[in-house]
Amino acid sequence: MDKLTGLREVARDVFKEALRAADPVEAVLRHFRLKEGVLHVGGVDYFLNQFERIYVVGAGKASARMALALEQVLSERVTAGLVITKTGYGERLRRLEVREAGHPLPDEAGLRATDELIEIAKRAGEHDLVLCLISGGGSALLVSPAGNITLAELNRATQVLLASGLPIAEVNTVRKHLSRVKGGRLAEWVYPATLATLILSDVIGDRLDVVASGPTVPDPTSFDDALAVLTRHGLLGQMPASIQELLEKGVKGEWEDTPGPDSEIFQRVQNIVVGSNTMSLEAAEYTARKKGMNPLILSTTVAGEAREIAQFYLALAREVRRKGRPVAAPACLIAGGEPTVTLRGRGKGGRSQELALAVALGLEEIPGTVFLAAGTDGADGPTDAAGAIAATDTLARSRERGLDPCGHLLNNDAYPLFQALNDLIITGPTGTNVMDVHLLLVG
Amino acid sequence: MDKLTGLREVARDVFKEALRAADPVEAVLRHFRLKEGVLHVGGVDYFLNQFERIYVVGAGKASARMALALEQVLSERVTAGLVITKTGYGERLRRLEVREAGHPLPDEAGLRATDELIEIAKRAGEHDLVLCLISGGGSALLVSPAGNITLAELNRATQVLLASGLPIAEVNTVRKHLSRVKGGRLAEWVYPATLATLILSDVIGDRLDVVASGPTVPDPTSFDDALAVLTRHGLLGQMPASIQELLEKGVKGEWEDTPGPDSEIFQRVQNIVVGSNTMSLEAAEYTARKKGMNPLILSTTVAGEAREIAQFYLALAREVRRKGRPVAAPACLIAGGEPTVTLRGRGKGGRSQELALAVALGLEEIPGTVFLAAGTDGADGPTDAAGAIAATDTLARSRERGLDPCGHLLNNDAYPLFQALNDLIITGPTGTNVMDVHLLLVG
Repeated sequence: MDKLTGLREVARDVFKEALRAADPVEAVLRHFRLKEGVLHVGGVDYFLNQFERIYVVGAGKASARMALALEQVLSERVTAGLVITKTGYGERLRRLEVREAGHPLPDEAGLRATDELIEIAKRAGEHDLVLCLISGGGSALLVSPAGNITLAELNRATQVLLASGLPIAEVNTVRKHLSRVKGGRLAEWVYPATLATLILSDVIGDRLDVVASGPTVPDPTSFDDALAVLTRHGLLGQMPASIQELLEKGVKGEWEDTPGPDSEIFQRVQNIVVGSNTMSLEAAEYTARKKGMNPLILSTTVAGEAREIAQFYLALAREVRRKGRPVAAPACLIAGGEPTVTLRGRGKGGRSQELALAVALGLEEIPGTVFLAAGTDGADGPTDAAGAIAATDTLARSRERGLDPCGHLLNNDAYPLFQALNDLIITGPTGTNVMDVHLLLVG
Repeated sequence: MDKLTGLREVARDVFKEALRAADPVEAVLRHFRLKEGVLHVGGVDYFLNQFERIYVVGAGKASARMALALEQVLSERVTAGLVITKTGYGERLRRLEVREAGHPLPDEAGLRATDELIEIAKRAGEHDLVLCLISGGGSALLVSPAGNITLAELNRATQVLLASGLPIAEVNTVRKHLSRVKGGRLAEWVYPATLATLILSDVIGDRLDVVASGPTVPDPTSFDDALAVLTRHGLLGQMPASIQELLEKGVKGEWEDTPGPDSEIFQRVQNIVVGSNTMSLEAAEYTARKKGMNPLILSTTVAGEAREIAQFYLALAREVRRKGRPVAAPACLIAGGEPTVTLRGRGKGGRSQELALAVALGLEEIPGTVFLAAGTDGADGPTDAAGAIAATDTLARSRERGLDPCGHLLNNDAYPLFQALNDLIITGPTGTNVMDVHLLLVG
């Protein structure tokens, strides 16, 4: 087996472990352990005999699979519970109810399921423990408009906000104030019960108040902020009357604001990230080290046009090869995030495959180097691949097959090229999403 | 003085030291020392009493200033010599001749000066030492077409090659075979004298055979390669007849090929890099450490569209800020290279100012961070600035002055914004060029 083949295998193995750390079942099992009546959740211990009942709530594309793991640990000790997931993402659970609902656009099923979920939260009393399972997609699945706002009005407002090009943080500032569950309000329903939320984070920087709009996380923003966002961008007039009324009430203090960091309700609340891009990269780091590589995590928030970001990875590869910097070979530089692709062609691919192909174009002059880019959800763009692997020999192997790598890149058509080379990463849908993983191996 | 002001000063100081390491006089003085009759050049010692005469030759935009330093060290011991530099870049020297010639397009003055230079090289005998000073621009200044090729024909061929979009390495493969001095041929003229070449490298990756087309460096390419480049890209027919003839002769073995790595003439040749992007970054690293920062050199070969590369720097800044990776704060990440800018607007700026502005757009959410980008030649694009400094407060300070940073970036108009903020880096022409320096400080 030649060196590049070996490096490719290491890259695939390292990615596999990164993926495993983000698997909803694995992620929960790693951070949620029951031993001699004590439930260890993250760094906190819950003595189960101090609680009368245990309720479970949750929402997100991974919530059903997270619930599966939770039941595995707690088995019969759960009193009752309900999780909401995207249609088609349900699992057969033993004690917990699963509701499927619309995503990305909230629907009536989500509305009904959220009402059920709030009822459970309200039922929990001072001597009860509520476990909450949150993952990406929860914003749409956990839907309960405040005041007189209808679902149709809420959806219209959301579409206006998303189409405006506002930063997602500002969109969420508004959304949190239109909801009965977002922005920490679910924690209010749970209060005075004890609450532990397990979060599978799909957002850049793992901002807990952003994942699923932070239903159990203190909201740093206020009605004033929400109104300011709409006013500043001239969007207030485009909001339905019911929404304008609610915001006005909120600003006047006639409608209670979302609970902030100082609110007493968070004294019994713990939010624990069980899976995230950071954790997946750390799993990659651990695995790479075990395999004899010198690992270095660069960043979990890589963004930018894929083919240009490729230039930076090439610059790093050259430096490792020639100077042993920033780490000595055999090196495994690790990064994560979500680059973008500006579509120019009509080919088949995704951002990770495009990134890998753009890196491949410069790898020929850097011996013994492999680059892997893949999404943790298993679907890179509209393809059945998670990503692809590029290597020093990708160009040569393409030429042997009569393929033109540059032409494929220009046409956003990385998939057929990597398919012909057998260098696609195929995982199938993983049921999770902690963004993308990039591995640069200089052997 | 607030934290950002302090960090800005550190960044400016670190850049100043990076620049100093690339200064032609400083660079030569650091690697060229005379002590008790022994000349230390890089790692090699030359016992001057073993040599009858010392000749000096050289070419490049920095060659006159390099000669200035050389004379300072050797004073009266130089027998004779001549350096060729770009018109306007001359210096008043004591013993050495300076010729000014055309750049970037070679001219008759360069032709005559190169003839004079070859005469000096030929004059050097077995017991003589030849010191050669090479820097960027030497390719155009050191001009001596082989065979019957005229200057006009050579220039026409060069223009065809450059306009074809060929990689510079392939362009040079052809150019080296059309010359009496490039591709190691100057070393042939010097042979059997001892030769030490001091190189100020302006090329990515410090490929010595690329700087000034490597007049004293073994040429890994052959006439076969040169012909293959032209044939492969369909350019052979566009070459003047004299050039086609020479290449055919070369391929048939009727014209001697450039000397390769195995040629015996290189046994008495030493090529020493005295200044380069790498050395400037290492000076930056040293200075940053002295100032209490944790430095990390990332790469010396950064390329790609400036505003996209900015995203990678932001990803790194976020990671240092939040996780202390890849180094802990106070961190100084250091990189170099030559990003590009696709002009879309009609504003005033350069690639370094554009990069700094694109970084600024994302810095507001990353506290205590400063980013400096500047060219070592002192002229970023068609401006009198070398580059600019961005910081966490750049957006806020822009808004205070009624400036729209995003609009300035879209119009490729970074200069006026940084000028208004007093955040331009102004050095004046530095007489050197080791590409750009990027400093990311997270305090």
